[in-house]
Amino acid sequence: MKEFELIKRFFSEQAIKRKDVVLGIGDDCAIVSPSERQNIAITTDTLVAGVHFPHETSARAIGHKSIAVNLSDLAAMGAEPTWISLAITLPEVDLKWVEEFCRGAFDLCEFYNVQLIGGDTTQGPLSITVTAQGLVPVGKHLMRTGAKAGDWIYVTGEIGDAALALKHIFKEVDVAPEYRESVQRSLDFPTPRILAGQALRGYASSAIDLSDGLIADLGHICTASKVGANIVLDDLPISNALRDTVGLEKAFEMTLAGGDDYELLFTVSEDNKVGMETSLANTTNTITCIGQINRSEKITTTLNNKPVAIHAKSFEHFSNRKD
Amino acid sequence: MKEFELIKRFFSEQAIKRKDVVLGIGDDCAIVSPSERQNIAITTDTLVAGVHFPHETSARAIGHKSIAVNLSDLAAMGAEPTWISLAITLPEVDLKWVEEFCRGAFDLCEFYNVQLIGGDTTQGPLSITVTAQGLVPVGKHLMRTGAKAGDWIYVTGEIGDAALALKHIFKEVDVAPEYRESVQRSLDFPTPRILAGQALRGYASSAIDLSDGLIADLGHICTASKVGANIVLDDLPISNALRDTVGLEKAFEMTLAGGDDYELLFTVSEDNKVGMETSLANTTNTITCIGQINRSEKITTTLNNKPVAIHAKSFEHFSNRKD
Repeated sequence: MKEFELIKRFFSEQAIKRKDVVLGIGDDCAIVSPSERQNIAITTDTLVAGVHFPHETSARAIGHKSIAVNLSDLAAMGAEPTWISLAITLPEVDLKWVEEFCRGAFDLCEFYNVQLIGGDTTQGPLSITVTAQGLVPVGKHLMRTGAKAGDWIYVTGEIGDAALALKHIFKEVDVAPEYRESVQRSLDFPTPRILAGQALRGYASSAIDLSDGLIADLGHICTASKVGANIVLDDLPISNALRDTVGLEKAFEMTLAGGDDYELLFTVSEDNKVGMETSLANTTNTITCIGQINRSEKITTTLNNKPVAIHAKSFEHFSNRKD
Repeated sequence: MKEFELIKRFFSEQAIKRKDVVLGIGDDCAIVSPSERQNIAITTDTLVAGVHFPHETSARAIGHKSIAVNLSDLAAMGAEPTWISLAITLPEVDLKWVEEFCRGAFDLCEFYNVQLIGGDTTQGPLSITVTAQGLVPVGKHLMRTGAKAGDWIYVTGEIGDAALALKHIFKEVDVAPEYRESVQRSLDFPTPRILAGQALRGYASSAIDLSDGLIADLGHICTASKVGANIVLDDLPISNALRDTVGLEKAFEMTLAGGDDYELLFTVSEDNKVGMETSLANTTNTITCIGQINRSEKITTTLNNKPVAIHAKSFEHFSNRKD
């Protein structure tokens, strides 16, 4: 199919900027030269149209997001992103669409000095699978397994706005016009917290990126670390847009259950708190302490120092939509 | 979606057998530890149901093939396969199907000591994207660019049977019952020529795997190496099944244009011929010399020492079906 050859050329014409890429797109494989004393972090994520993003999402946003969700996984390991393989399945050849998709994807790659080293272009229902790789010094990668009772729980940025954007698209809520752009941007153009992840090496006892939702992802850390946690709802970093649109109670629920935030959730021991804050001060990331790890083996929430129940059903609803 | 969690567990329960895998499935990324003085070869291929394999293909064959086509790319670079990321999109949860798929995929991984290190399971139209990685000593990878006038052209194995199997499925030909199993096997369970690829390091001047068809793939080598080639039709390694089913003339055409063979096509200088043959004798691969590289910048064919025209139209037909 001649048109698909055109698209392939579109991808293969990306200039090689990284010195560790020995051979880029155009042969049976790419060849990269890993540096000594670094391990390689590898992650793969698929985005399917209508499942992971609404069909009406712009090509540029899809391009950005397909890279961002993978870089976010690298960030959660404390890795420095290096190489990307991109497999895209397209229902038809629309060069304008592909151009916009590439703009979204490659702008983000360029920002983080990530090289597209390969991929595949096939015909079929719209779906994108990215495999992203990054380097991390031997023994310095962050995992889900290290959280200990007493550790403080932090998140970067604000959470819940991506879930709010989806509810607005599905007409379940009406976001005020002055908030719409920033809320939509949270959903379409998430920022992978690459520098924060690297700054956390040696300080965070565990880390994960927020893709499934705060409770679900904290649950992954608790399960892997065999601990429990309490979240102080009063301290959740909720945007004005979310609070003003759905009210505080619903905002708590959406912040806990939402997903698609691509902020980092991490734990830090009391001893490492100051070191972590100093290390992170060199990045532009805001962080908020939202609770503490404990021995309970479950996740609880408090408001005004009193226990409150988590709306688990709402979480189920959100988690069902994904995968 | 709870059922998808089940499938994820299915993949994540694969034992880690390679020592260079520091962290397997279950965190945000896998972590691998590349050995010194080795480069990494990386390839990605997507198989879409109805495009890259008929809808009626068995789950086990799909599992095998999704890994095999990627290992075949590694073979063509002379790389030793090491790590696999597998992204699978499924229309519905059918655990029996997934079990058979895994059997096909993991049997092949195990045979070549390849470790599944990550992936993603999503809901949508059936499609599989595999990213395969392998190690190759620095400077020893095989490329498409090194063929020189006078080099001999070789292929491993027999070619054309996968194309024959497709024609049988589409009822364009009728393969005799005694041939059906082996012909179907060529299409469904191709063998990546891993050992042959490694044996060719230092001997082959160029290499590629046969996925698009002999003429198309030899064309990739000729374009990359800025050379031409002549194929001696009399010498093509055609199976009895193919010859007996369609006759010799049509068999030539299908061997040249077919695709999906996953044999290696490579070039060797006169000086390296004996060294290559000795090196390959340690593997179980048969090889056949099918022609010679020249300065013509085009691909010609001869039969009984006389030039004959290539049925290019037939090639177009086949190439259109893929991508």
